[in-house]
Amino acid sequence: MPKQAVLTPQGEDFPQWYQDVVARAELAETGPVRGTMVIRPWGYGIWELMQADMDRRIKATGVQNAYFPLFIPMSFLEKEKDHVEGFKPELAVVTHGGGEQLAEPLVVRPTSETVINHLFAKWIQSHRDLPLLINQWANVVRWELRPRILLRTTEFLWQEGHTAHATYEEAQAETLQMLEVYRAFMEDTLAVAVAVGEKSARERFAGADRTYTCEGLMRDGKALQMGTSHNLGHNFARSFDIQYLSAEGRREYVATTSWGSSTRMLGAVIMAHGDDHGLRLPPAIAPHQVVLVPLAEGEVAQAVEKMAAELAADGVRAHVDTRFHLSFGRRSVDWELKGVPVRIELGPRELEAGQATLVRRDTRAKSSVPLDGAARAARDLLGALQRNLHAESLAFRTDHTFPVTDLAEFRQRVGDGGFYLAAWCGKDECEEALGEGTGASIRAIVGEDPPAPTCLVDAAPASSAVLVARAY
Amino acid sequence: MPKQAVLTPQGEDFPQWYQDVVARAELAETGPVRGTMVIRPWGYGIWELMQADMDRRIKATGVQNAYFPLFIPMSFLEKEKDHVEGFKPELAVVTHGGGEQLAEPLVVRPTSETVINHLFAKWIQSHRDLPLLINQWANVVRWELRPRILLRTTEFLWQEGHTAHATYEEAQAETLQMLEVYRAFMEDTLAVAVAVGEKSARERFAGADRTYTCEGLMRDGKALQMGTSHNLGHNFARSFDIQYLSAEGRREYVATTSWGSSTRMLGAVIMAHGDDHGLRLPPAIAPHQVVLVPLAEGEVAQAVEKMAAELAADGVRAHVDTRFHLSFGRRSVDWELKGVPVRIELGPRELEAGQATLVRRDTRAKSSVPLDGAARAARDLLGALQRNLHAESLAFRTDHTFPVTDLAEFRQRVGDGGFYLAAWCGKDECEEALGEGTGASIRAIVGEDPPAPTCLVDAAPASSAVLVARAY
Repeated sequence: MPKQAVLTPQGEDFPQWYQDVVARAELAETGPVRGTMVIRPWGYGIWELMQADMDRRIKATGVQNAYFPLFIPMSFLEKEKDHVEGFKPELAVVTHGGGEQLAEPLVVRPTSETVINHLFAKWIQSHRDLPLLINQWANVVRWELRPRILLRTTEFLWQEGHTAHATYEEAQAETLQMLEVYRAFMEDTLAVAVAVGEKSARERFAGADRTYTCEGLMRDGKALQMGTSHNLGHNFARSFDIQYLSAEGRREYVATTSWGSSTRMLGAVIMAHGDDHGLRLPPAIAPHQVVLVPLAEGEVAQAVEKMAAELAADGVRAHVDTRFHLSFGRRSVDWELKGVPVRIELGPRELEAGQATLVRRDTRAKSSVPLDGAARAARDLLGALQRNLHAESLAFRTDHTFPVTDLAEFRQRVGDGGFYLAAWCGKDECEEALGEGTGASIRAIVGEDPPAPTCLVDAAPASSAVLVARAY
Repeated sequence: MPKQAVLTPQGEDFPQWYQDVVARAELAETGPVRGTMVIRPWGYGIWELMQADMDRRIKATGVQNAYFPLFIPMSFLEKEKDHVEGFKPELAVVTHGGGEQLAEPLVVRPTSETVINHLFAKWIQSHRDLPLLINQWANVVRWELRPRILLRTTEFLWQEGHTAHATYEEAQAETLQMLEVYRAFMEDTLAVAVAVGEKSARERFAGADRTYTCEGLMRDGKALQMGTSHNLGHNFARSFDIQYLSAEGRREYVATTSWGSSTRMLGAVIMAHGDDHGLRLPPAIAPHQVVLVPLAEGEVAQAVEKMAAELAADGVRAHVDTRFHLSFGRRSVDWELKGVPVRIELGPRELEAGQATLVRRDTRAKSSVPLDGAARAARDLLGALQRNLHAESLAFRTDHTFPVTDLAEFRQRVGDGGFYLAAWCGKDECEEALGEGTGASIRAIVGEDPPAPTCLVDAAPASSAVLVARAY
């Protein structure tokens, strides 16, 4: 292997390490228009696996997919006051179509509450039409002044769920159910331990009554919002006049929810699991779960193909790297960079000795295994590796969650990274004070049981426990 | 069942029948912005099955998926002269972003040759980087003055493949390979018999050297272009400077291809298979392959649930309709409208007699089958139904393909619909003359062996056989 590092070490410059990994692992790159991105095949392959898994989980709750238009009349956005205020600064606007100036400018969807609720009003007549549970996979556009690839881009891919219910309570239950779908997906599939809780009023989605979030902790100690679920109450139902005839014959407003998760999760996986050698992919979302690297053509390559066939027959996504014009070391480093969970390496002397080398990406541990059991051993490692990445993520979060009861100490320490568990009185001023000079914010209200009797800021009686952190 | 027809009969007004089916089967509807559409869950469920099947076929040829930006700088489009001329009248243009006027207007992609070839120029250095085989699933926007739902909409969903090759010959082989992928998909999965051939120069994709097409024949006798594959030769490689170092150490231009198929195929399935009772779905793309309709709750419903479980265990997409607040007839008509291939109906007297009613959607034939073999019988019908729909489509095309050798006769008959097989000399003027007063056009050059020695129009020596038809 080459002696010089191919990546800037995390400890030296984490943002540069991130840029290096995204480029060197061929995950994504910036597009020609500022703030846009190209998702390259390796990155998109990961996204496809994420999508398929998330889609299965969403559908298992009874939700159906549909598709709604990219272009929304500006007047639609203006129907919900808070919503338009929140999104107006981020809009891309189409003013010309088919060579002519348009009578009404069109907004490129930043999110689809307005157009979907417009249709809900047509589709919902009776209590028998409820609940209406819809999801869409789509691209959305939010103009970004400080874009960061995969994390904050002018265009990104996501799923956005939109549901309508007979009662506020059912909408609240749906909001929490989808939050749990996100949490389970992030922990089980992405192997990222997330903190789950409610957003403060300041951090709520524009137009929501309540917003809930899954927050991951990246390896530089900064938090990343990985998915949110909103109870929109009757806000959009009133703006778009979505009423139904109840079983008792009364006209009632529905209550709606929305919830979204995006390609930003790719950024989360990179920053939650990556190390100085590159990406470390959980097997559940690895386009190649096992890569087999034969040192040479001929018998060695044949033995490797046999193992690959065995793995494929077992349902493992296996790939043989036959780029013999590249050195063996270069090929191994490449798959390490790309985060492939397990490598099987084989040379002529090993073949003769009936052995193969197994390398796991999480620990980088190498072991020699009997050739005829190598495929089985690789397969068996996948489950362990998935669990280990999650255990590491959980341990990292535990080790970097600090209860704080002293404001000065909090201010001094928060720049070091991590979640700071504090008691909060619920007042806006105190929330603002937490951020002054620290760049930190309340990421989530994690419970009604404050860790101290009084607010970290003003010593008023505390009503909740909050996680405070600097965030992406 | 209700006595009055729920749909305008095809024979009375085919376009109205189409609108009726799209609405009544809850496939799609127009969006609030003119020309845009909403794909409802039933329509989107069909699209998801099409997508999964097509995606598998595309990947089997070694193509990888990726994602490229929605917004393209106007200057990119202008790099390829024919390309910009072809697409300029259909562009949607973003002039404002983040509250400010943009320095350069952005085009909402009508197709992605320009942005993808821009990236190909960065990714391709050596002959070892070739072939580069990329596909993207995305939305595109082409401003439509005469929108028609699912067939011609301002925004639609599609896949667009883009590949780069070392030689022109390889690009040509790829172009034909993907045409064959489309043909096989349309025949095997959509059960639509398609005519395959090359487009004339007039009908070529803007910027292509050669364009190939799959043309379906709808039940009103009009043709529908269902997918196209283009050999772009060196046109885009020159415009975007995509060169590679050959094994011999020379700088060479790559040759590129592109190929696309879209949600328009949903329209094709409706119009190729639908009848006066609604949609008829090939089982391969039916979200529910078998719907079970119990007449009543209790024992009847329980017996039906048991059959549904049996079908699901056999890998059949089965659904039980428990909307007991709707009449039995209303429920049956609903699934007929939606095109579900097979229904199992069960009432209390049938249950007692140990029988169930099996209804196949293609022929509307009903049969009584023993209860304990009903699930198996329904499953076994699916293959037959898929084949029968294809056979019907093929027979319809055969019956509606007419060799013509007399121009006056052609002009008189072409309005009746169908493919007209004619000899053509290859001249633009003759092609134009075929369309004059007929609204018809050459849909495909289907061979170099003309069906007559002289051109249908000017009696000059003919060089090819063409299919002429009126088209969507």
